[in-house]
Amino acid sequence: MRRLALLMFLCTFTVLVKAQVITSPDKNLTLTFKLTEGGVPTYQLSYKKKPVIKQSRLGIQTQDVPSFVDGFTVADTKQTSVDDSWNPVWGEQKTIRNNYNELLVTLRQEEQKGRHIRVRFRLFNDGLGFRYEFPKQQELNYFVIKEENTEFNLAGDHKIFWIPGDYDTNEYAYTTSKISEVPQLIEKATIDVHAQQPIETLAVQTPSMMKSDDGLYINIHEAALVNYPAMNLNLDADNYKMSAHLVPDAVGNKGYMQTDAQTPWRTVVVSDKATDILASNLILNLNEPTAYKDVSWIKPVKYIGVWWEYFVAGKSTWAYGTETNVKLGDDPSKLTPNGRHGATTENVKKHIDFAAENGFDAVLVEGWNVGWEDWFGNWKEEVFDFTTPYPDFDVKELQRYAASKGVKVMMHHETSGSATNYERRLDKAFQFMQDNGYNSVKTGYVGKIIPRGEHHDSQWMVNHYIHVAETAADYKVMVNSHEAVRPTGLHRTYPNWIAQESARGTEFEAMGGLAPEHATILPFTRLMGGPMDYTPGIFQTDLSYYGTGNQRVNTTLVKQLAYYVTMYSPLQMAADLPENYKRFPDAFQFIKDVAVDWDDTYVQEAEPGDYVTIARKAKGKNEWYVGGITDENARTATVAFDYLPKGKNYIATIYADAKDASWNKNPQQYTVRKVLVNSKSVLKQPLAPGGGVAVSIKEGSKQDMKGLRKL
Amino acid sequence: MRRLALLMFLCTFTVLVKAQVITSPDKNLTLTFKLTEGGVPTYQLSYKKKPVIKQSRLGIQTQDVPSFVDGFTVADTKQTSVDDSWNPVWGEQKTIRNNYNELLVTLRQEEQKGRHIRVRFRLFNDGLGFRYEFPKQQELNYFVIKEENTEFNLAGDHKIFWIPGDYDTNEYAYTTSKISEVPQLIEKATIDVHAQQPIETLAVQTPSMMKSDDGLYINIHEAALVNYPAMNLNLDADNYKMSAHLVPDAVGNKGYMQTDAQTPWRTVVVSDKATDILASNLILNLNEPTAYKDVSWIKPVKYIGVWWEYFVAGKSTWAYGTETNVKLGDDPSKLTPNGRHGATTENVKKHIDFAAENGFDAVLVEGWNVGWEDWFGNWKEEVFDFTTPYPDFDVKELQRYAASKGVKVMMHHETSGSATNYERRLDKAFQFMQDNGYNSVKTGYVGKIIPRGEHHDSQWMVNHYIHVAETAADYKVMVNSHEAVRPTGLHRTYPNWIAQESARGTEFEAMGGLAPEHATILPFTRLMGGPMDYTPGIFQTDLSYYGTGNQRVNTTLVKQLAYYVTMYSPLQMAADLPENYKRFPDAFQFIKDVAVDWDDTYVQEAEPGDYVTIARKAKGKNEWYVGGITDENARTATVAFDYLPKGKNYIATIYADAKDASWNKNPQQYTVRKVLVNSKSVLKQPLAPGGGVAVSIKEGSKQDMKGLRKL
Repeated sequence: MRRLALLMFLCTFTVLVKAQVITSPDKNLTLTFKLTEGGVPTYQLSYKKKPVIKQSRLGIQTQDVPSFVDGFTVADTKQTSVDDSWNPVWGEQKTIRNNYNELLVTLRQEEQKGRHIRVRFRLFNDGLGFRYEFPKQQELNYFVIKEENTEFNLAGDHKIFWIPGDYDTNEYAYTTSKISEVPQLIEKATIDVHAQQPIETLAVQTPSMMKSDDGLYINIHEAALVNYPAMNLNLDADNYKMSAHLVPDAVGNKGYMQTDAQTPWRTVVVSDKATDILASNLILNLNEPTAYKDVSWIKPVKYIGVWWEYFVAGKSTWAYGTETNVKLGDDPSKLTPNGRHGATTENVKKHIDFAAENGFDAVLVEGWNVGWEDWFGNWKEEVFDFTTPYPDFDVKELQRYAASKGVKVMMHHETSGSATNYERRLDKAFQFMQDNGYNSVKTGYVGKIIPRGEHHDSQWMVNHYIHVAETAADYKVMVNSHEAVRPTGLHRTYPNWIAQESARGTEFEAMGGLAPEHATILPFTRLMGGPMDYTPGIFQTDLSYYGTGNQRVNTTLVKQLAYYVTMYSPLQMAADLPENYKRFPDAFQFIKDVAVDWDDTYVQEAEPGDYVTIARKAKGKNEWYVGGITDENARTATVAFDYLPKGKNYIATIYADAKDASWNKNPQQYTVRKVLVNSKSVLKQPLAPGGGVAVSIKEGSKQDMKGLRKL
Repeated sequence: MRRLALLMFLCTFTVLVKAQVITSPDKNLTLTFKLTEGGVPTYQLSYKKKPVIKQSRLGIQTQDVPSFVDGFTVADTKQTSVDDSWNPVWGEQKTIRNNYNELLVTLRQEEQKGRHIRVRFRLFNDGLGFRYEFPKQQELNYFVIKEENTEFNLAGDHKIFWIPGDYDTNEYAYTTSKISEVPQLIEKATIDVHAQQPIETLAVQTPSMMKSDDGLYINIHEAALVNYPAMNLNLDADNYKMSAHLVPDAVGNKGYMQTDAQTPWRTVVVSDKATDILASNLILNLNEPTAYKDVSWIKPVKYIGVWWEYFVAGKSTWAYGTETNVKLGDDPSKLTPNGRHGATTENVKKHIDFAAENGFDAVLVEGWNVGWEDWFGNWKEEVFDFTTPYPDFDVKELQRYAASKGVKVMMHHETSGSATNYERRLDKAFQFMQDNGYNSVKTGYVGKIIPRGEHHDSQWMVNHYIHVAETAADYKVMVNSHEAVRPTGLHRTYPNWIAQESARGTEFEAMGGLAPEHATILPFTRLMGGPMDYTPGIFQTDLSYYGTGNQRVNTTLVKQLAYYVTMYSPLQMAADLPENYKRFPDAFQFIKDVAVDWDDTYVQEAEPGDYVTIARKAKGKNEWYVGGITDENARTATVAFDYLPKGKNYIATIYADAKDASWNKNPQQYTVRKVLVNSKSVLKQPLAPGGGVAVSIKEGSKQDMKGLRKL
């Protein structure tokens, strides 16, 4: 026995001093795993020999069993390589390459009866993913996580695009600063957002986008967030160190684990080109393929809605009654009508007509069901039932009418944060949808969470959102969740979870406005995890148009068009009022034309906080769409067309800011011109301050092309 | 304005000094309501001029709005009287009289913008009920309760039958002491019970049964616990003062209220006869009538089960596999059988045969569904799915077989405390039951509650149990809940919530044993709120019979028979193994005969902690059943038959302890004799220590009566 111990000690020592190294397939990235003194696991990451993550600790602190932080020896290591590809149900590409080198390290704690865990690293050309794995073993069945100790020690005082760490909301405006400046800026950055729970210590959220002084773009996030709380990042601003800060539950615990188990992947996307960050599929590649057998019912959606009218000058209301205290089960016909209810049968029919005339798939209707009179701010459990319409909303008639026009009505399930109420009624809610011809739902979580003490981003709620997506799939329903935990690529696994909000979207243009740079940051942050229901398409940007106030949408009209390409989503809304689209039919044509599913994507130029230009090929069609946006500064976008099949001319329709346009002056001034382009063409397009450019490229007959000049 | 204020002051003053007094219909009880200095509402209660509750404060402390504790004036008072009756779906009586005098006091807080609440007192001949009401008003829509300040100031150092205050369990053994002795006894009384959360300050549970030195019996509990946490009682043992201690939620709040709202009724049942306490229908009368339109499917049930075998010497097991770590979705056929699984198709069929042969309605089967290998103690969320049987449990075959024998299989839904998991799966679980011929379910909540931080008795869970009962009703399913919050008469409103456990029942006889006095206390405590699934009928009381250990059921065999009458429930189990009933066919006859629903009930003699003798008339039949039990002391029960129709003889079958029987020696020695009785007969029946007596009384033909002697 003593001999065995000695032998084990020697083995341990040998392994301990020898670091494990892998490189990315293109050799640009190098990942080093090493045990330090005391058996503490660490990793480091470099890109073209520049440090990205300096030596950083790995580990999990537990509540009830000895922690997984030290006393480790390396029991085994294994390297594998994968190079294959897969086809998403919908997406930015028809085919996604999955190419990585993997290092799997098995770590053993001799003093804990030989208990072992694993750390799995996958190194792609575009970055690193790693996760902890807890195999089923006699010594480890259940444990409770106190904190994850994963560190991300950065190499310098990078520029960082950040929002404050929070357990409940992602709807903050971004601040751009040096890491070292975050402490002095965070109080100001922690603006009021409903149901927020800012983290008391210094922390920021993921996806965390950074740029080093020597030109490296670094993005830290996570992939496949399942049965685990979301990760914020503690920040040591003096030493540029980040570490995981998981969202706690009602009793302060962070995760309940049963082996076999694993954490989500921690992801570090890195490149010296900003465009590579946007083109990265690393997070999707780290998610599991879908288990759905039939995905034929999952279709990208372009939609309009009874929605924006709730934000502009109180034109109409979600609520039907004037009451300030209502209960489920009250007779809706006894409510006192406020006379401004938006979700009326008549108004929805008008929207259905408009959708049918203009080729939209669906009409979202919010405020159709009872409960809106006092739904917010009361931590009320029984707030909506999802099956009882207001008296002026005729479900059956609208089902008939919509079907006759080939349009779907999109369901709305606002929960007010009362997830237990929603779960309790979920089957009945989806059955109601099935019975009445609905195939998609927008969910909402505006309010403090019930079960009380849980958070929007805690493990219980993370599981809730997935439960909703899975149950929806049972009813062939697509889900667009608002105020849910930020996405982590789970739409690969649950492709009916078609989009999310989870950031500051267009609605905030009507509540203080978004900075012109906002939409140039989102693709590098929020959208890294998955598509966003940003709800673009506001043509009437000056909201004083509606008679009161001085609110404005801080973009030009053309920038709103560009969003349909720069803000990737298979679910795109034309958010403005139909009457406004009728005023600008030539610009509206782009929204009618633009695809919502793609064969391929070409990130042409990008700089977080400054500009983004992206081209995409429509799925199954010889059509391409380009969107380019800028921040508050005018600039000239360079749009190449080198992705077009060689030697052929196409008709490009260019939607451009007028010369005198800007986000706050003449935002509705634009030009639309048609030109011929081919793979050698390059468009140099001036963008207005807060402006953009949108281009559609289609095949045309000789007749069509006649008279069009070459670009 | 000044004049108005003066006038209001005068009115206020007038009302303030004038107490409001009502008496019970029989004038024995007097209730006095009075505002004291500072506008603090108080009440007091006396019985035949003896103080029951000395002047005690009323009030509700709130978190978010000014509290409802003082600054009140009496805005209005109203007295009404009611004398009517109603018929329960099932019960101890066919018809229940509802006779009370009511005082409704409207209290106004001038300084809170004239906000008002009401206190409603109902004074019955058997006691007092009162509750707080919060009418809908401009100044009051939502509020959060910090604590309810209701006091119960007792008149002396009463004898009290108590269990420790706890947020999660009622499964304590009772202690009998003076109020002043509770502090020195509570540590010992707080025995280990799974998932307990004893209250840190001195507190006891309701129903709290007391007896004063001058012979008053006083019982404090609550009625109609809906959308509110359960009440414990803080105890000031030196001054004999009790006050409400509500069960908190995960964030420490006690109740979330939306007007119109009311608290449950606080009940004080009082009499100078112990039998009156047991005969009281006050708690039922304070509950709402059922809203169910069709109750024809709700039927009292006598059942056996695959259950007791799990408790006796590990004869069989709930779990099928030997694994210690299983997950829903694992393939059950991959489990390693432990060879002792109880819920096999074969074993259930044997039980169905026995049930059919002996006239039982149903067979409970626990351990039929996957998840039992590691179901307990892990605070595991996804623990059971309620629809996946073990490989050796053939649902369809058992449905067919049971139907062919005219017997129902009773479903079992153990949740392990994971209420969110249960709610999520509830519709599918009940649909599964409907599809497979089940019409009743035993639910279980053994474990720490999920949502984590909630308690078995917090508002969220109180609503959960009702949600389960209501959803069950949608599927015409009867519910028997174990480890749920203690009952408060809600079976009037939800008659398919047919029974509960919520106390230390027979299972504890196999885990340390129950004191012989236990069952003489339960009718005065736990059963005040509603029927208990006590699971009586253990004939093989010495459990060493099964080969190991020295456990014993601390009763004689006959006392087990008596329980079918003394432990009222419309759901009665014959809990022992069929093989044991076969060994004692003459005693078993009583279990086969005894009714489970009643036209009338006659509490003949009773003293908490000592003895209980009750006679009941079977529903719709000229049959009567008597049960008498004693504690550890032998005694002679006096059983009168004055409820029998006059001038007619009936055949009484008397099941009695044998002369040398006692709970710990010769418990299976008994006699069965038949005699003739009429309304003038009186039986003086010796009961063994820990023993009892059971009598069935039936009509008989002359032939039947031939040779029988008169009592």
